[in-house]
Amino acid sequence: MSAFLPSKFPLIQAPLAGAQNSAMTIAVCRAGGLGSLAAAMLPVEKLEQEIQTIQAACDAPFNVNFFAHTMPQITAEQQDQWLSLLDQYFNEWDIDKNNLPQGVIRRPFDENQLAVVEKYRPPVVSFHFGLPEKKLLDAVKATGAIVLSSATTVEEGLWLQENGADFVIAQGIEAGGHRGIFLNQDLSTQMGTFALTQVLSQKLNIPVIAAGGITDVSSIQAALKLGASAVQMGTVYMLCHESTISTLHRQALEQATRQPEKYPTAVTNIFSGRPARGIVNRLMQETGFVHPHALPFPFAATATGALKSVAEKQNDTSFSTLWCGQNPTGCKNISAYDLTMELVQAFL
Amino acid sequence: MSAFLPSKFPLIQAPLAGAQNSAMTIAVCRAGGLGSLAAAMLPVEKLEQEIQTIQAACDAPFNVNFFAHTMPQITAEQQDQWLSLLDQYFNEWDIDKNNLPQGVIRRPFDENQLAVVEKYRPPVVSFHFGLPEKKLLDAVKATGAIVLSSATTVEEGLWLQENGADFVIAQGIEAGGHRGIFLNQDLSTQMGTFALTQVLSQKLNIPVIAAGGITDVSSIQAALKLGASAVQMGTVYMLCHESTISTLHRQALEQATRQPEKYPTAVTNIFSGRPARGIVNRLMQETGFVHPHALPFPFAATATGALKSVAEKQNDTSFSTLWCGQNPTGCKNISAYDLTMELVQAFL
Repeated sequence: MSAFLPSKFPLIQAPLAGAQNSAMTIAVCRAGGLGSLAAAMLPVEKLEQEIQTIQAACDAPFNVNFFAHTMPQITAEQQDQWLSLLDQYFNEWDIDKNNLPQGVIRRPFDENQLAVVEKYRPPVVSFHFGLPEKKLLDAVKATGAIVLSSATTVEEGLWLQENGADFVIAQGIEAGGHRGIFLNQDLSTQMGTFALTQVLSQKLNIPVIAAGGITDVSSIQAALKLGASAVQMGTVYMLCHESTISTLHRQALEQATRQPEKYPTAVTNIFSGRPARGIVNRLMQETGFVHPHALPFPFAATATGALKSVAEKQNDTSFSTLWCGQNPTGCKNISAYDLTMELVQAFL
Repeated sequence: MSAFLPSKFPLIQAPLAGAQNSAMTIAVCRAGGLGSLAAAMLPVEKLEQEIQTIQAACDAPFNVNFFAHTMPQITAEQQDQWLSLLDQYFNEWDIDKNNLPQGVIRRPFDENQLAVVEKYRPPVVSFHFGLPEKKLLDAVKATGAIVLSSATTVEEGLWLQENGADFVIAQGIEAGGHRGIFLNQDLSTQMGTFALTQVLSQKLNIPVIAAGGITDVSSIQAALKLGASAVQMGTVYMLCHESTISTLHRQALEQATRQPEKYPTAVTNIFSGRPARGIVNRLMQETGFVHPHALPFPFAATATGALKSVAEKQNDTSFSTLWCGQNPTGCKNISAYDLTMELVQAFL
């Protein structure tokens, strides 16, 4: 089904929590794409400032992305199992596991973030991990925002359509970072971008945005052939000047861009408690990519974040979240504006 | 890289071991596609007859597909663990686990099959699970056959190029049936069709054939946009008149075709010992999709085949290999000739 995003071109820069700020949003918007701001790891005051910065810089439409998970209750047993799993690493790096620094906790969309949406009225609001509760969602929609959310299966796409999404992002298994999976946590039935985009485009009455493995003009055109009305691209922006990833993450991505055969990615729940795709590294390999004792999202990130922080000081990425999709070959060390101008040739 | 298959159109009907015979090969060839014959489960005499049938019916080029695995040594402990895993089912169906019917054992390409290739000289020979040993491969190539094999990762694609394949099939994670995976058995780094096709097309000097989730004219065109020189399509042929799948398999596919959200597929090693994608059913769910005690390929199939055989007599698909890719929506109950004539519109 054809339909239109408010941006000049139907290309969304994927929200990259922890890897971007308003500078990237602005650069993409100026080139006619739909720039996104990833709000999930921003305190509310910072979120407000970032939106103000975007609105002052450019009057093009933009997207603000929130997470829509529910915060789990953690039992003492879960906590013990989790810390035991990591015990050898705490010893190796001389970390006191009973006194871990808190770090940023990824919180779901709430009344405070809603107040920011109501005040600044971003034209597009996207959610990851489903949708927020109805009262919050209705309030977002009442601002006039177009609402997007990600589906990783056909079932999730139908659920999102029934529960108020205006567009569905078909997040194929190729996509980097956190899987949007929300109806269950079974990775076995997660679908590839090629199949998911086609099937959702056929089965839904609302438009589909393809995501996962899209990296250049030809692959944008391929996604449109599969029935998508728009594309969302994340990994390809991660080497751009505006990307805020660490030097170590940047080096890892550069290697994967040149030699994807040597630096494959995999989906792991070990860093945050939820499945996410990144370049394979030591922790993923040693614990196994998906471990039942990973503390439920978002709480696993406290311990792995502490390990990451200490190891990265020694230039060691054993515990780093090297988020990356299955096709990093399009990544370029140029401005997000220039990259977007290249990519939107697909629509001309 | 552009290059040409000997068929009129660059569309291969995927070899469907256990689901087709020469009738399908012939129908596809007559419509200008490259029909395949799946040889892995055929005795040599039957293989000869089938090739004779094809050559008598049609002088178009065709493909014969063989498996290239190595036969594993099974220990008594492996056998015990495997039968223990299935014990409850043997009891449930009153099967004597010490006296299982042998069934068809999938054997790798050997001197006897080579003799058939040398005698009948099929224009294309494809292998699954890598390539046969060099002496056998060289002999196949000496017949003039174009040699294809499947890669499921970038690393496998480079390996096949270095080791004598003329074309590489990019078998994305969407594909139904057995994964061609051969360099290791780690499913975590298996790639989606969208990303794999693009990356292999960029990295290889030989042409790439996209496979997995391709189901209609638009998706063929999408695969070409991703850099593929040709496509290979399997699931879409499985409801054709020429398909030899059981009535129960046909019914399951028809359901998945109508309601893919209700009948998802998953990759499992439980039926044969090697990962293969099929519609989720009871055995897959109860043992878990991938179980370390599944007897190495091809030997697991003896026990699961016995269960399947008994259960299917009661119209029960708990143990059936319901092979199917992630997008069955293009399946049609028409002749493979008519289906191919529709699909090749993509190239006109």
